[in-house]
Parts: sequence; structure tokens; C-alpha cells
Amino acid sequence: MSGWIAVAGLGPGDDALVTPEVQASLDQATDVIGYIPYVARVTPRDGLTLHPSDNRVELDRATHALRLAAEGRRVVVVSSGDPGVFAMASALFEALEAGPRDWLTLDIRILPGITAMLAAAARLGAPLGHDFCAINLSDNLKPWALIEQRLRLAAQAGFAMGFYNPRSTSRPHQFARALEILREECGGDRLISFARDVTKPGEVLRTVTLAEATAEMADMRTMVILGNADTRRVGRFVYTPRRAE
Amino acid sequence: MSGWIAVAGLGPGDDALVTPEVQASLDQATDVIGYIPYVARVTPRDGLTLHPSDNRVELDRATHALRLAAEGRRVVVVSSGDPGVFAMASALFEALEAGPRDWLTLDIRILPGITAMLAAAARLGAPLGHDFCAINLSDNLKPWALIEQRLRLAAQAGFAMGFYNPRSTSRPHQFARALEILREECGGDRLISFARDVTKPGEVLRTVTLAEATAEMADMRTMVILGNADTRRVGRFVYTPRRAE
Repeated sequence: MSGWIAVAGLGPGDDALVTPEVQASLDQATDVIGYIPYVARVTPRDGLTLHPSDNRVELDRATHALRLAAEGRRVVVVSSGDPGVFAMASALFEALEAGPRDWLTLDIRILPGITAMLAAAARLGAPLGHDFCAINLSDNLKPWALIEQRLRLAAQAGFAMGFYNPRSTSRPHQFARALEILREECGGDRLISFARDVTKPGEVLRTVTLAEATAEMADMRTMVILGNADTRRVGRFVYTPRRAE
Repeated sequence: MSGWIAVAGLGPGDDALVTPEVQASLDQATDVIGYIPYVARVTPRDGLTLHPSDNRVELDRATHALRLAAEGRRVVVVSSGDPGVFAMASALFEALEAGPRDWLTLDIRILPGITAMLAAAARLGAPLGHDFCAINLSDNLKPWALIEQRLRLAAQAGFAMGFYNPRSTSRPHQFARALEILREECGGDRLISFARDVTKPGEVLRTVTLAEATAEMADMRTMVILGNADTRRVGRFVYTPRRAE
């Protein structure tokens, strides 16, 4: 009965970006839990039970993981990117808070990974080289009005921005509205980058101005990065200088 | 003459957080350039020249790396954390922009790493589980007034916040002022975490309320993470729920 849970970040896709810490946890696990495509990235072996589950069942998945660990299993909950950034770590603590008190003594570790924003930034150059923010553009878990207000304040603060979940088929119009707000606040010359399937086969990188940007340039597999007022191109790269006035 | 430059993130300190991609670049390098303590993390070997340099010479270091690559060397510029987050990637592109045009054809890659903010968040729980921002509190490269304004807007936007370089001996009073501003904007009950030497021997994690926080809790080896209005404790962890109203 020495169960544990590791909530592990698999990075954006390329196995060369999986940390040795995460790989070691997978090598020791008895159970791997996660969204179907992330569990599919784990090599099956004897003694390892894979528990793939559908999207949007994060709390059920977290509760399942805690129950298995309480039974003495060694459980890895896999996230893409970093588990603490719009991924499974918060869901695990929500389930922990709602669960029986003795779960609080479980051995729980969060194992960081390369989040999509930083992987995309690296492929583009250094667009997040000054202060920046990360905003999840999905309104599944917050009101759209809050997102609009946050975009305006972030622009006024001069942040470069990384946008997760910019656009899905169930809410096709919101990203167009986000671009409209950003054009109002930042002007049309600001650089914006679309990084699709970062570090995966078929990766596409595209940088345009806000004036040129259209909602169709993004989907749920796209990380969007908006520069700050100083962000510029040098050769094939996009970067934000360290200095600001 | 097939030189290249990789700007590589060594992560926060633990070698188990160095990605295989970064390790492979170090294995192929002829030259490693960087700030003294980061170069000291690279294992010496025959055929590898180490170029440790002092702090605050980022542009010289970047120019040196570009020159060596132009001569056909295989150069890794090492950063701690992620090279794109308050580290060497932007400095490299600044040097590239200022240099001769033929440098633009050099093979340059940025290799992401685990940045201190995300390593600290993982050790604490999931304090960045909702939208968040990263602010460098050093005024070496921007006016302090801009930092104050950014803190206020970030608080009004409801971001959790990660603070890099919170406090140094050359500017001991600014972090106290930052805490004052945050108390004004967020109230005294907001949780703030101090993570010193994250993933290194001697790591210290401490979470208090803003009312209890003092400037002495941070130094240059401390990553500071401020929660948002919903950030809470569960057992020994600090986390921010995914949902916001």
C-alpha cells in the first residue's frame, strides 16, 4: 500500500521534449489515466493499465486517479504540455478538495512539462521575451464578458499574450470578436503568430499583423501568440526585445 | 562549415528536468556559452570548449555565439529555465538584428525548457490553474513606473501572477512597494507563495497571505507566485480552480 499520483506533462508532442522525470514516473506506474490522445502517447507494457477517457471529464478522471492511488496503485495522470497550465493539475486538486479527508495524506506530485505557449514561442523565435500573460479563450469555465475585459486590460498593461484554445467548432465566432478587441486596443500593426501542431509532424507557423489576422487562421490545435508594441521580425524569426520604455 | 546555434533551457536546476532535446544539443556542441553557474551545469568533455561569462553581458555573449556559429562551430547558449522567458533568446535576436546580414542565414534554434514559474507552480500545487501572467520585477530594462502600472492592471484583470527577479541587494525596497500595490489592489487575504531554489537541494516553499507577506521573504533565487481571488489551499497544496465567475 504505497500508492502515489503523479500529474505529468508530456509536452507539446515531440518525445524529445518529455522530461526524464516524467519518463521515470511512467516507467514506475501501474496505471495511466488521461484524455485518449495523451494516453495513446504512452508505450504499453506488462503491468501497466491504460485508462483513456474522453475530453471534458476532468473531474471524474481526477477522482478515479485519487481512488486508485488510495488503493495503493502508482498512478500517472497524463496531460499534454504542462499539467498546471489549463490542464489536469487543478482538476486533481478540485477532486481532492471534494473527496474524503484521508486522501489529503496521499503522495501527490505535479511534474512540469513544456507548455504549448513556450514551445510555440521557441519555434517562432522569442515573442515572449518581455512580460507576458496566458489566457484560455474558451468560455466553458468562465463568462465570455470576463475574457473580453481581461483582453483589454492585458493589452493596456503591455503584455505579450499567449492564447490557449482560441477557437472550436462549438464557438466559431468568439475568436473573431477577440481579434476585433485586440485591434481596437493594440492597432492593426501588432504582430500575431499562429502555431499549429507545434513540434508535431505537419507543424505550421504563420505570423501576420493584427490587421491581416482572421479567425480562420486558428483552430483548437493552434497556439496563438500576440506580440507587445515592440515585437518585431528579424529574418524568419519573431522576437520581443527585453527592454521597454 | 555547418555551424549552428541552439539557445537551450536547462530548466530550474534538477537534471531530471532537462529535456532530451537539450541534452542532445549539448552532446553535439563544440562550444557552450553562458552565465558562469549555468555553464557549470554542463559536463566537460574532449572537443567541447566552455565559455562561462559574467552576468549582465547578455548581448556580448549572444554576439560571441553568433560569430562562433558563423565560423562553423556548433554552439549551445545555455539559459536556466526556458530561454524565451527573461533569458537569452531575446538577447540573441537583438544581437542578430544588430549584426551583419549574412548571420540571418545561420541555423538558429531555440530549445524550450522548464521555466522557474512553472517548476515552482508544480511544487506548490497548481496556483496558475487559471489565466496568469509573468512579470519581471527588475527595473534594469524598464522603468519602475511601468512595473507599478502593470501590477495594477494585472490585478484588475484577475490574473494569477508569477514574479521573476523579485528582489536584489541593489534594489531592496522595490519589492516592498510591489507588495504594497498588490495589497491595495487584491486585499490582504490573497495567497502569495515564495519558492526558493526550486528543485535544487535546499528548496524552500512558503505560502502566506498578502497581509503576512514581507519583502524579506524573497531574494533573487526566489520565484514568487500570487494567486487570483479564487486561489486556495487544500492540504499542503495551493491551487487555483479552473472555473471563474
